[in-house]
Amino acid sequence: MNERLVVIGGDAAGMSAASQARRLRKPGELEIVAFERGHFASFSACGIPYWVGGDVAERDELIARTPEEHRERDIDLRMRTEVTELDVDGQRVRTRDLESGAEAWTGYDKLVIATGARPLRPPLPGIDAPGVHGVQTLDDGQALLDSLERTKGRRAVVVGAGYIGVEMAEALLNRGYEVTVLNRSEQPMATLDPDMGRLVHRAMDGLGITTVGGAAVTKILTGDDGWVRAVATDDAEYPADVVVLGTGVVPETGLARAAGLPLGVHGGLLTDLAMRVRGHENIWAGGDCVEVLDLVSGRERHIALGTHANKHGQVIGANVGGGYATFPGVVGTAVSKVCALEIARTGLREKDAREVGLAYVTVTVESTSRAGYYPGAAPMTVKMLAERRTGRLLGVQIVGREGAAKRVDIAAVALTAGMTVEQMTVLDLGYAPPFSPVWDPVLVAARKTLAAVRSAG
Amino acid sequence: MNERLVVIGGDAAGMSAASQARRLRKPGELEIVAFERGHFASFSACGIPYWVGGDVAERDELIARTPEEHRERDIDLRMRTEVTELDVDGQRVRTRDLESGAEAWTGYDKLVIATGARPLRPPLPGIDAPGVHGVQTLDDGQALLDSLERTKGRRAVVVGAGYIGVEMAEALLNRGYEVTVLNRSEQPMATLDPDMGRLVHRAMDGLGITTVGGAAVTKILTGDDGWVRAVATDDAEYPADVVVLGTGVVPETGLARAAGLPLGVHGGLLTDLAMRVRGHENIWAGGDCVEVLDLVSGRERHIALGTHANKHGQVIGANVGGGYATFPGVVGTAVSKVCALEIARTGLREKDAREVGLAYVTVTVESTSRAGYYPGAAPMTVKMLAERRTGRLLGVQIVGREGAAKRVDIAAVALTAGMTVEQMTVLDLGYAPPFSPVWDPVLVAARKTLAAVRSAG
Repeated sequence: MNERLVVIGGDAAGMSAASQARRLRKPGELEIVAFERGHFASFSACGIPYWVGGDVAERDELIARTPEEHRERDIDLRMRTEVTELDVDGQRVRTRDLESGAEAWTGYDKLVIATGARPLRPPLPGIDAPGVHGVQTLDDGQALLDSLERTKGRRAVVVGAGYIGVEMAEALLNRGYEVTVLNRSEQPMATLDPDMGRLVHRAMDGLGITTVGGAAVTKILTGDDGWVRAVATDDAEYPADVVVLGTGVVPETGLARAAGLPLGVHGGLLTDLAMRVRGHENIWAGGDCVEVLDLVSGRERHIALGTHANKHGQVIGANVGGGYATFPGVVGTAVSKVCALEIARTGLREKDAREVGLAYVTVTVESTSRAGYYPGAAPMTVKMLAERRTGRLLGVQIVGREGAAKRVDIAAVALTAGMTVEQMTVLDLGYAPPFSPVWDPVLVAARKTLAAVRSAG
Repeated sequence: MNERLVVIGGDAAGMSAASQARRLRKPGELEIVAFERGHFASFSACGIPYWVGGDVAERDELIARTPEEHRERDIDLRMRTEVTELDVDGQRVRTRDLESGAEAWTGYDKLVIATGARPLRPPLPGIDAPGVHGVQTLDDGQALLDSLERTKGRRAVVVGAGYIGVEMAEALLNRGYEVTVLNRSEQPMATLDPDMGRLVHRAMDGLGITTVGGAAVTKILTGDDGWVRAVATDDAEYPADVVVLGTGVVPETGLARAAGLPLGVHGGLLTDLAMRVRGHENIWAGGDCVEVLDLVSGRERHIALGTHANKHGQVIGANVGGGYATFPGVVGTAVSKVCALEIARTGLREKDAREVGLAYVTVTVESTSRAGYYPGAAPMTVKMLAERRTGRLLGVQIVGREGAAKRVDIAAVALTAGMTVEQMTVLDLGYAPPFSPVWDPVLVAARKTLAAVRSAG
């Protein structure tokens, strides 16, 4: 008896799920049909800033697997086909071919929803003017590159100073632009505490990127030719030959909402640990359209990140394919960089801890990436949060140069394991002068945080 | 009532203990006397290869704290003073001033033994010839540098291909020497499994370092001037203008043995978790002269490594100073490099697992340090061992280029936490294209190892 799996969304989560299910179930046992409304499947959205900036030469390098390659693996991937309706009771989806306009219903035995996220496009006057770009899809990236080619001026404004914002600031700097970043919060990287964000701000200043905090964009101004010419805030106008929006994303769950599937407070689908949509035995969801459990705060969060999407896909594929796997949750690890400045965070910020009622102590230490005497030893700032009394690790933020970002993995594993900072002080981490001071910066932070826990009582 | 703490050995463990005790107890409460037989205190022995190789310009950069600085902190550090006898019942040590020859007894209330390790110098003909060098102390390093200055020839032989051996091979290569490494095992880095050691071998070949495996040195040959001229094995003679011994170290515990203190099978002092010598309420020991518990195998090991010595010192200092701290053990993490090749290991090798009766599965994967499309993405080989059936992580070995070594920390924390490879597959590690593929190499290894655990049954 041949079952049919339908996958909505042909990117990381959807195609990982499809591929993993295919590994476990032969075409004679499970038919797999996947619908993707865009022009590309299985591409690295995280790589777009590096393509725009010129570190990655060709668009196609960002494509992990082409539609043809998926089809060779017996996955019936239909591109440019949008799912317009989900009929849960009828176990079917309605699709529209975006080229021909043809509509059809496709039945499923099992369904995977991997519709991703969509960029927040604030409804500002001028937001749709030519020269204003999002950077979520490869088409977006190409359109931006075309604009960079077309514009004569070299002034760029980036709206938003989160991951995409700072990465796009670097990309535009690499392309020779004079870059201004307008940010609602006082400091860039609001996923860090403001004191750590200030370090990023200072480094961006040093790179010649103008970062304006507390800037609420009110409109996009255009010239006589209709092309963007400036971005306006309450206080000022910032001339711009090109504008990039890095204003965050929200789960793309219109379809799921219309079908009555359970959504969380952030608008993402709610699943169980096997990534099954709550209350629906034969529907799974993963990637940027779901909410995930934050293992540190115990709350649901929405995090759009390719590495989670891939894991979700694996877990879903295993379960759909008759195996068993779970995704227990995240600890909120994220790394980024602006030129040589590395930025990393995991776990809770001060404000997160307060929000969930955790009393904490926090310590910030300065250390170096290598033994102080070893060439290339670079300064690194590590901020650590631990719960009062118990000393349980709550979060770590790191800003530094080479070797800073991936050190956050130490804390990510420790958070997952529920370690205390006291346990962390004796972790057996790799030490040799080219790689670390004799006390790794994370251990230095753990020692000082332990002292702070004790003196806080 | 003023107590006296005596510390034997003025390097990492001893002086960390002294410093930490001083932080907790004022000079009026605790007198601290430390004896060091050498010319230097608190120096980084791990840094010597980089000084010899020219990465570190000045010897004094390797000195973390001078004797004067210790004395300013009210630690009575007596240099060039050897402890020649330990009278446990009488609570006193006999010392000899190595300059004047004067002997004296000094009583103690509390004692810290931090006598370190001494290099294994095989009793070979010619081993004491000029031009043959150990590299354990700063004096050794200076003597070697003097030899490099003095010799006209440019052929160097390194005996031993462990950490010191490979690091010294790099140092001598940097100094323009033609380097041959003679190694007893078939592959360099016997702290790795041979299949991973082979990757190091190949990389050393590529650098122009000749590595000879299965080479048992029988004698050192000298010229008419008495200076070394070659190293002989059973099979061959290797011309040498300078010879460096990297043949390992053993705990320096002659004093402790004579005093009847408990030693383990590796000749190191045995302590409890508070680093107190077993059965002796007022004697602590730490650093390269003790054995430590391997948390993965449950066996005692001897590991001479500055980062452990510093932790031991902290723990001892806390306990001596009236606080409380413990050192639970190690998981056996070590990192090193030969030029751009990074080498890392933690936990058990295959042979270690067999020795303690653990059934295991093992998998080796190839991945990259960054997203494949990101500039500078370098190949990385990760070998992982997990226990059969339970899937508990047992060990990880990594060989690769930039970004390889410190990734072992992920496994070090996971080992400490007793994680299974299944738990590791969903670890929330830092991901961005400049730092990692979307599946970190350690996660790729965990996934494949999980599959191997399942199919092994």
